[in-house]
Amino acid sequence: MVLDRVNTPIDLKQLKIEELKQLAEEMRELIIKKVNKTGGHMGPNLGIVEATIAMHYVFNSPEDKIIFDVSHQCYPHKILTGRKEGFTDPDKYLKYSGYTAPEESEHDLFKVGHTSTSVSLATGVAKARDLKGESGNVIALIGDGSLSGGEAFEGLDNAAVLGSNMIVIVNDNDMSIAKNTGGLYSNLKLLRETNGAAECNFFKALGFDYYYVDKGNDINELIDVFEKVKDTSVPVVVHIKTLKGKGLKPAENNKEAFHWVLPGALDKKETSCEAVQETYNSITTDFILKKAKEDSKVIAIAAATPGAYGFTPEFRSKLGKQYTDVGIAEEHAVAYASALAKSGAKPILAILSSFVQRTYDQLSQDLCLNNSPITMPVFWGGLSNADATHLGAFDIPLINNIPNIVYLAPTCKEEYLKMMEWAVGQDKYPVAIRVPFGEVISTGVEDKTNYDEINKFQLVEQGQKIAIIGLGNFYHLGCKVKREIKDKLNIDATLINPKFITGIDTELLDELKGKHSLVITLEDGCVDGGFGEKIAKYYGPDSMRVLVYGGKKEFTDRVPLEQLYERYHLTVEHILNDVKKFF
Amino acid sequence: MVLDRVNTPIDLKQLKIEELKQLAEEMRELIIKKVNKTGGHMGPNLGIVEATIAMHYVFNSPEDKIIFDVSHQCYPHKILTGRKEGFTDPDKYLKYSGYTAPEESEHDLFKVGHTSTSVSLATGVAKARDLKGESGNVIALIGDGSLSGGEAFEGLDNAAVLGSNMIVIVNDNDMSIAKNTGGLYSNLKLLRETNGAAECNFFKALGFDYYYVDKGNDINELIDVFEKVKDTSVPVVVHIKTLKGKGLKPAENNKEAFHWVLPGALDKKETSCEAVQETYNSITTDFILKKAKEDSKVIAIAAATPGAYGFTPEFRSKLGKQYTDVGIAEEHAVAYASALAKSGAKPILAILSSFVQRTYDQLSQDLCLNNSPITMPVFWGGLSNADATHLGAFDIPLINNIPNIVYLAPTCKEEYLKMMEWAVGQDKYPVAIRVPFGEVISTGVEDKTNYDEINKFQLVEQGQKIAIIGLGNFYHLGCKVKREIKDKLNIDATLINPKFITGIDTELLDELKGKHSLVITLEDGCVDGGFGEKIAKYYGPDSMRVLVYGGKKEFTDRVPLEQLYERYHLTVEHILNDVKKFF
Repeated sequence: MVLDRVNTPIDLKQLKIEELKQLAEEMRELIIKKVNKTGGHMGPNLGIVEATIAMHYVFNSPEDKIIFDVSHQCYPHKILTGRKEGFTDPDKYLKYSGYTAPEESEHDLFKVGHTSTSVSLATGVAKARDLKGESGNVIALIGDGSLSGGEAFEGLDNAAVLGSNMIVIVNDNDMSIAKNTGGLYSNLKLLRETNGAAECNFFKALGFDYYYVDKGNDINELIDVFEKVKDTSVPVVVHIKTLKGKGLKPAENNKEAFHWVLPGALDKKETSCEAVQETYNSITTDFILKKAKEDSKVIAIAAATPGAYGFTPEFRSKLGKQYTDVGIAEEHAVAYASALAKSGAKPILAILSSFVQRTYDQLSQDLCLNNSPITMPVFWGGLSNADATHLGAFDIPLINNIPNIVYLAPTCKEEYLKMMEWAVGQDKYPVAIRVPFGEVISTGVEDKTNYDEINKFQLVEQGQKIAIIGLGNFYHLGCKVKREIKDKLNIDATLINPKFITGIDTELLDELKGKHSLVITLEDGCVDGGFGEKIAKYYGPDSMRVLVYGGKKEFTDRVPLEQLYERYHLTVEHILNDVKKFF
Repeated sequence: MVLDRVNTPIDLKQLKIEELKQLAEEMRELIIKKVNKTGGHMGPNLGIVEATIAMHYVFNSPEDKIIFDVSHQCYPHKILTGRKEGFTDPDKYLKYSGYTAPEESEHDLFKVGHTSTSVSLATGVAKARDLKGESGNVIALIGDGSLSGGEAFEGLDNAAVLGSNMIVIVNDNDMSIAKNTGGLYSNLKLLRETNGAAECNFFKALGFDYYYVDKGNDINELIDVFEKVKDTSVPVVVHIKTLKGKGLKPAENNKEAFHWVLPGALDKKETSCEAVQETYNSITTDFILKKAKEDSKVIAIAAATPGAYGFTPEFRSKLGKQYTDVGIAEEHAVAYASALAKSGAKPILAILSSFVQRTYDQLSQDLCLNNSPITMPVFWGGLSNADATHLGAFDIPLINNIPNIVYLAPTCKEEYLKMMEWAVGQDKYPVAIRVPFGEVISTGVEDKTNYDEINKFQLVEQGQKIAIIGLGNFYHLGCKVKREIKDKLNIDATLINPKFITGIDTELLDELKGKHSLVITLEDGCVDGGFGEKIAKYYGPDSMRVLVYGGKKEFTDRVPLEQLYERYHLTVEHILNDVKKFF
């Protein structure tokens, strides 16, 4: 294998072009095998193999700096920069992160996982080089899907006037995660169709020098153009047309499904007829379809990750004009939804916990200051073993300190549905709903709560001495703690399902004072700025003791959930031990 | 006066073109007189008088919907939509907000004060119209300065594919608040120079139909083009070249200084030789100049509002390459600063409290996850009588629940300088510093704190029974409360200057337990998600009583500060009364 002779980018430079091509095939095979085993980003990595080889062949990393946008397309880069064991040795498949990670290699500059940041980062790296009077190339590799994000535009706008070396490689595979949408893509199409010659050129309009490579999976062509732009003294865009999923037919044919795959994606028998299990995704899509049918003013909105909520192509096509995918443009999504609501439509904006943080100012100014009645289900909120870039631990601190918005935490299917119904039906508040994480829990009993009674907690069981307030996902932990307290301390604790994250039920909290001396709060996320702190503050002037449980303010990186629960005392045993000290 | 006959847009339509021109002059005069009296946005409003008249002449507001970006250029619109008394009657000068306000008029669609949102909002309004099967024009009026903000790009990218009526009027006066920067402006320049004919066209690249109006202060030309695009069935951009500050020579000549003016700006004698008073701005700029001189890797960064920090043209020119104004592009500013720091430079990013919230995801992902040692002075943080769109009450909840960042709260000049020194000198943490608000307080004693001891609070005076923790601006309120408690309750309270917002000094808090039964926290901002809640949570399991003082989670709109202090119990009297209940 050619790869046997390649451990660092320097080794690459000794190879003949034909060997580079063989290397590409070898790498591709490794990526397919490994990703099919572990799951991960398949299509983006298969499409960028040749460009990565050509980059490392022409440029001299780490003196030349390569910054990957989103960085989920960095697998070929990792193979070429000392980490190929992560792809050749199944025992080491999970050793390396799926994103660039400076702690792994000097060839990785930043920890990146959210899109549209590379050009801004590269501009800073280039400016630092200039301030220090150094030389070298700074390269940002950004996919066409990421170009729709506002930060990418801000970066391009500023990179263009840097006045020194800066190379932006636009990896154009005509796909975001789902299909690309947005006016910019008409220009990319025009440029592809004219072999880059069209005068009307988004990048030239911003002031970049511009090169087009039609065969973006051809190592020869790529090397040619990279050598041309190497050591450029002005900002330049190299627009390369690549094939997402290249070399793996199912991925070439179904780019959306193979953007990111679960383990074993290639082993599935297409003909197998699996029983369809109910999930919070299917509950959501069924609800939206029903609502949309009843009312033509209902509209579902996603920002480039429809698959995460089960917004399948079929679902989208059923909704027709009652669906908008704004592309990677979460800020726009929130403002757009706010204006829709203000104009009498009924927008349902689905968003991931990790990405809702891309919209703080829009939530505050466009949405909440205008008090627009949108419905925003927030998915994947909660502690998890996710990469540091995709944690779901911060949506509560983010959302619940903004005025006017109502953030709800259902504990089961019935509550989730009732809250969605209420949110879509009312016109007083922006409403966010933290979609439960994990398997569907169903009580089988219809939720008859009147959610117009804002901040009204549900007193599930009246007890004494100890009150347990279990929020959303952690209500069920609260139930277990209650049983354990009964078993071990013979205390009938009070159990509360608060339902509202954004406010507290002062009446109920006051009532607790008489018969209780300890309140426990449980929340599935970072406690700093979260729910429990507000309970603690409320009881601050009082003799009530309060124990606040949840995650710590920290970035965790692929830490197993059990380990996090242990670390944060989020187990029945830990909590019982803590409680014992008071009784 | 022609204006006597104009109370609503309908009246306008009865006028002859010559009368419209006279009307423009009358409105201009009123604006100059009023703004010189009250302060406010001078240049932007003077430049847009004719376009506003032409819009209301051609379109039919409120059936046709006009959305103002930033909306600080809405004074002419207010004059024409039933609110001229706010400009003709000095007693009513302050009756109306300086921004669009739906509660004032059906002609104002949104409460807006941050930039770059109009196209997104307009897209939502247009889509709602389409869902409802209605007709009518939707118009976004956006200034060239706002185009550099990411949300504007996301909006344009999506508006372009709306597939129905949408009119974006780009008010191009070749100025942001300060000078425009960014590659986009080279294209606007090209378009101006070619009378809109250049093939390379940013807006066409996105898919818009495009019209150019060279004389954007000529009512005839504007009416012509607006009539052409009225009822368009596709998204269209009308690019109009206007003169910022038109009709007021000092404003035409010094566009930056007259963007927003203090009361009496026109009455100042140019020759007067005022004594220069020290301010936190001048302390900041002196510090930066000194540092930049010592170290060529120090670089100051602003995002379009340099004047707010005293970054005068002279200051900027002294810094030369060690200064970047990224334009309205706060997201980019944070990522850019992070990359600069990661590459060995020493970035100092100045930002306003109200605008730092435009960058949550960048603070979290680009900056804090990468732990880049930038220095970020945050200005204008604190409760204030500001417009609801420009509150400084939320920077603490925003920043201090993000991991890794150190947010410091100086109480005087000496601490501020020492903290800046420390932040620029260290390489371990992203550091934000909440610049004190108001007049400079100087102790005359050098601050010798070692800020490497993260989260170490300063025990200023050891007392007993009551401990007062006064954060930043409110440390001084804490001092007063201490004196009052001594006077009225004869208790020597302990006084603490925490200095760190992002963490708590658990050692000191534990020590307090012995001799104290009540802790008071004081912070100048929204308490939800803030500093005091963390103290309350820490003492939750203990018998210590905690009173948390600060602002409520709410949008306040031009409420006098005294009234806010009263509302939130932020006076010595209120606090003493609260404390008395415990002794």
